[in-house]
Amino acid sequence: MKEISKLMEYRSGVKVVDATLRDGGLVNNFNFTDDFVRDLYRTNVKAGVDYMEFGYKASKDMFDVNAFGKWKFCNDEDIRAIVEDNDTDLKIAVMADVGRCDYKTDIIDRQDSPIDLIRVATYLHTIPAAIDVIENAKSKGYEVSCNIMAISNNQESDLRVALDMLGKSSADVLYIVDSYGSLYPEQIARVSAMYMEYAEKYNKTIGIHAHNNQQLAFANTIEAVGDGVDWLDATYASMGRGAGNCAMELLLGFLKNPKYNIYPALQFVEKQMTKLKEDGVVWGYDIQYLITGVLNQHPRTAISFTKEKRKDYTEFYKEITAQE
Amino acid sequence: MKEISKLMEYRSGVKVVDATLRDGGLVNNFNFTDDFVRDLYRTNVKAGVDYMEFGYKASKDMFDVNAFGKWKFCNDEDIRAIVEDNDTDLKIAVMADVGRCDYKTDIIDRQDSPIDLIRVATYLHTIPAAIDVIENAKSKGYEVSCNIMAISNNQESDLRVALDMLGKSSADVLYIVDSYGSLYPEQIARVSAMYMEYAEKYNKTIGIHAHNNQQLAFANTIEAVGDGVDWLDATYASMGRGAGNCAMELLLGFLKNPKYNIYPALQFVEKQMTKLKEDGVVWGYDIQYLITGVLNQHPRTAISFTKEKRKDYTEFYKEITAQE
Repeated sequence: MKEISKLMEYRSGVKVVDATLRDGGLVNNFNFTDDFVRDLYRTNVKAGVDYMEFGYKASKDMFDVNAFGKWKFCNDEDIRAIVEDNDTDLKIAVMADVGRCDYKTDIIDRQDSPIDLIRVATYLHTIPAAIDVIENAKSKGYEVSCNIMAISNNQESDLRVALDMLGKSSADVLYIVDSYGSLYPEQIARVSAMYMEYAEKYNKTIGIHAHNNQQLAFANTIEAVGDGVDWLDATYASMGRGAGNCAMELLLGFLKNPKYNIYPALQFVEKQMTKLKEDGVVWGYDIQYLITGVLNQHPRTAISFTKEKRKDYTEFYKEITAQE
Repeated sequence: MKEISKLMEYRSGVKVVDATLRDGGLVNNFNFTDDFVRDLYRTNVKAGVDYMEFGYKASKDMFDVNAFGKWKFCNDEDIRAIVEDNDTDLKIAVMADVGRCDYKTDIIDRQDSPIDLIRVATYLHTIPAAIDVIENAKSKGYEVSCNIMAISNNQESDLRVALDMLGKSSADVLYIVDSYGSLYPEQIARVSAMYMEYAEKYNKTIGIHAHNNQQLAFANTIEAVGDGVDWLDATYASMGRGAGNCAMELLLGFLKNPKYNIYPALQFVEKQMTKLKEDGVVWGYDIQYLITGVLNQHPRTAISFTKEKRKDYTEFYKEITAQE
């Protein structure tokens, strides 16, 4: 059985990454108040969270800065206004989407930036482009992770080639990403074993980013940590695209390292996340996400269904299983 | 890795037990309309569900029949009015709570009853009384299962004694019950291994009944089925006490036996369960249940918190962790 299953010990290499602003920002177009972001930052520090992802470094050529909140772009000065000198143990992360980020100009040298970690998000068919972002960020002094998205729709043999390429790159952390929330824990065990092969061969760390389409985001995350995966993404109240992510408060309740503290997380959920929901921001598990998860499809149809406030799950099921 | 993880096959011994009326009845005092119950029965037949639990056989000396809906008592004639001759593959179950059921008089011979299965619910300290109910039901011709509740608060050595006693009894199925929703999948794996020892020794079948306090009811159920557990409890839309149970629609989406069919389950959730929620019946995962789950406590404090429509999670946390 699993190493972590002793349940009285912990593995010191385990790190918790808060992705609330980044994945949650996909739900509200990154329109978080500064009060929310400051409170989130303080909460992460108090809760012992290791990394806080502020959002995307999105290309301003591709995206209208007036159409989104500022965390779509994560200007260094906007982060600095929140964290000042960040004299804490919490490290700062942003995501660079391959093909949608002007990384050569928008990511400056780490010594001049409040950012510690660049998270490179890629599909399997853009690995060479991802490696270009990785090497650029590494040369500027950053820690670098690489998230390979939508692996449940890829061939295992292709994924192995990608892991070998990334293994030879400068990336520090390679992420398992269950973009469609379609994987069961027993599949996570198999995928983790595959990633761990390359982690051992190339001395990399493995992370996991789960989605909650089948109420398995937390379960898949703790499955993975038992399989040797060290970096764990979570968001407060599961806030994230569609069905959302692994809930930070569940994860902090599980982890045994005494540096983690669930109480500030509960405070934050009570004060900030409940209010977001009351204000009409919608995310989280529902039947339409179950259906796209079971069918291993991108959740975009389910997100539209949600936005239209539809409740005719059976019609939706018929629509997205239509053969013609 | 797990047998079920081949994910293309199935184990024919796996059975699905719908506990919506019984565990869900704890949420609305068993006040289901006949339309709801008939629709549920038809849905279970169409979905390929193996057993449908109608409710409790509660003692009319202890409980006022006017204070509850009829499924608290499950008179045979009330079941018969729904299922008539039950000329289907769906079997009918009721629960007999040890110490709260006049089983000698209220459970008649199986040949005269629409009921097929008596589910005996017991705590660890009432195993001899449970065995009395088991043997009585068996002598009347029923299939019999035994649910040992609240095992997460018991000693493993005591549980082993109980499993040995029940192994020697006439019970057909022994159930793992995570009453507090406090167990993680890796603990379910260990508990399942223990139950399987006795299953093999005494030729019994093992079942699981999970609660969703930590969003793990489905995950724990599919962990268990991968460990050899055959009987799986679920409820539509997770309806059940407190945080509710494993969702039927998630479970039917997972199981590969072609006799199971998710579509009628989606129809039922769309038509009936959405309406129950709109009518103000409250159940399901929330932070107060996470907290009692993590702390391995009975959810009664969290249920009160819910009924009072409180949202001050941090005060609740302090109340139930008070040392004085």
